[in-house]
Amino acid sequence: MGGGYEKAVSTLEAFVLRGGKRVRPSFAWTGWLGAGGDPNGSDAEAVIRACAALELVQACALVHDDIIDASTTRRGFPTVHVEFEDQHRGEEWSGDSAHFGEAVAILLGDLALAWADDMIRESGISPDAAARVSPVWSAMRTEVLGGQFLDISNEARGDETVEAAMRVNRYKTAAYTIERPLHLGAALFGADAELIDAYRTFGTDIGIAFQLRDDLLGVFGDPSVTGKPSGDDLIAGKRTVLFAMALARADAADPAAAELLRNGIGTQLTDNEVDTLRQVITDLGAVTDVETQIDTLVEAAANALDSSTATAESKARLTDMAIAATKRSY
Amino acid sequence: MGGGYEKAVSTLEAFVLRGGKRVRPSFAWTGWLGAGGDPNGSDAEAVIRACAALELVQACALVHDDIIDASTTRRGFPTVHVEFEDQHRGEEWSGDSAHFGEAVAILLGDLALAWADDMIRESGISPDAAARVSPVWSAMRTEVLGGQFLDISNEARGDETVEAAMRVNRYKTAAYTIERPLHLGAALFGADAELIDAYRTFGTDIGIAFQLRDDLLGVFGDPSVTGKPSGDDLIAGKRTVLFAMALARADAADPAAAELLRNGIGTQLTDNEVDTLRQVITDLGAVTDVETQIDTLVEAAANALDSSTATAESKARLTDMAIAATKRSY
Repeated sequence: MGGGYEKAVSTLEAFVLRGGKRVRPSFAWTGWLGAGGDPNGSDAEAVIRACAALELVQACALVHDDIIDASTTRRGFPTVHVEFEDQHRGEEWSGDSAHFGEAVAILLGDLALAWADDMIRESGISPDAAARVSPVWSAMRTEVLGGQFLDISNEARGDETVEAAMRVNRYKTAAYTIERPLHLGAALFGADAELIDAYRTFGTDIGIAFQLRDDLLGVFGDPSVTGKPSGDDLIAGKRTVLFAMALARADAADPAAAELLRNGIGTQLTDNEVDTLRQVITDLGAVTDVETQIDTLVEAAANALDSSTATAESKARLTDMAIAATKRSY
Repeated sequence: MGGGYEKAVSTLEAFVLRGGKRVRPSFAWTGWLGAGGDPNGSDAEAVIRACAALELVQACALVHDDIIDASTTRRGFPTVHVEFEDQHRGEEWSGDSAHFGEAVAILLGDLALAWADDMIRESGISPDAAARVSPVWSAMRTEVLGGQFLDISNEARGDETVEAAMRVNRYKTAAYTIERPLHLGAALFGADAELIDAYRTFGTDIGIAFQLRDDLLGVFGDPSVTGKPSGDDLIAGKRTVLFAMALARADAADPAAAELLRNGIGTQLTDNEVDTLRQVITDLGAVTDVETQIDTLVEAAANALDSSTATAESKARLTDMAIAATKRSY
């Protein structure tokens, strides 16, 4: 096509290839293996391609999310919209640099989403597998976009309820990151309804527990380990389940604590103020609440997995992945 | 999913259903009929659904383009990002209203693009038809996103060449609006390579001629007929082929005219100033150039269509559509 499109696309390519933990393809692949997929079988390559298409959905989600959250760095590099903003400014092109950067990033995110579809459609999986995968693929994208919408909508509306925060966890994180990828892997193989149910229970529970761990690390994490500033979520004003639980307890029993929380969230807190809010949240019992909930979820997930027909090897691997997701300190 | 997602989606639904000329599905459907498709046959409904999926791609393109172009109205209603910006302001939610509107519109555009894929995949067309359609569908989306990228990139870089403007016409308009929809219709039926070639030649030529007519109307159109302000493209600073041709002629022969054009484009011109620029563009011969080019393209398109194996009825219909696209005054 000419005109610099190829160069712009190479930016997207570099973004996708330069890093990321490949969590979603890993769960999908493990889901396929666990259902009985043979990694040395003739369909393994097609399945790998179908699983890898999840990374292009994720590229769209990240590129567009970074515009929405006005994030400036991602994976140690400027975000895509900032990269094109910088190019525009550096070349002294006409018009508004920030707007140009966002415009290009919107289009490249769209391209990643379109190519995700191309990739799964052209993966080489059988027509039967494609038919089984179709509703899962469809649900996953509708859900993650819904989760992102709920996230910004809750924040704008100032919805402080645990229910609202939990709904974002359910769709933006759990369904998109673990439940549906596992479901996709099972559908690729043609697993029966019982294994799919077990995977979905496991994925939802571990996915929510993963996010709850993230909530704790976002407030209590050690910056030298997490790589994020101390009390990051408090300063950023994130309406997490942890915060919503603390607020609910404070509203019921400790109006002064509730005021401290509401006045502090989303402001430029000093380290001392972060420490104070941490103590308040802990004293209210919210940390214990969340830790208990993580334990309950992890146990329920383990039960669902253990009693499933997944292969022994995949059970061990999924258990390791569940531990890594929910017991981590970074 | 709850949390207001359904209501947000209903805004997208209303946007898609409230209007638009359905140009792309019409060309796709006519392409299918022309290849021999039977509108009373058993596969007609599935084909209609596959063609209609083009409207969801278009919904994404419009919703995202309106952010990129900072447009405030579309089809007589506020654009999607403005609608959510207004809601945010009206409800006195927290954060920046304009940013919220854009964020929601980015997500709803993504949803339309994802649903376009869902719609064609679940249209009920045969696996063979789906396999034939796949590369066309894929090319079309990559091309239109490329055309949009080239459009904003040319504008930012101040690329004044006819070549650059023509490249945008080729991909953003011709390929996306006529060539690929016709190709898609032919692929749905399973037409042979000769008919596909004829359709593509016809579609590219008429598509470019359509855009050239648009260029003329954007400068010379009667506001009471076009519904757009007088000299709209000049004020908006659109780098059309018409303008690029005028500039090329002026640079070669009339530096004073070139200066007038460069100083005038993209500024808040009065009606008198618009009249002056119109006269300059006409006197330079650019209008004659563009009219000649339209005639040449329409004739080449007619030849390609006439000598093709398309049905007589579809030839008549496509000719009508070509005339409507290239001889219009609105």
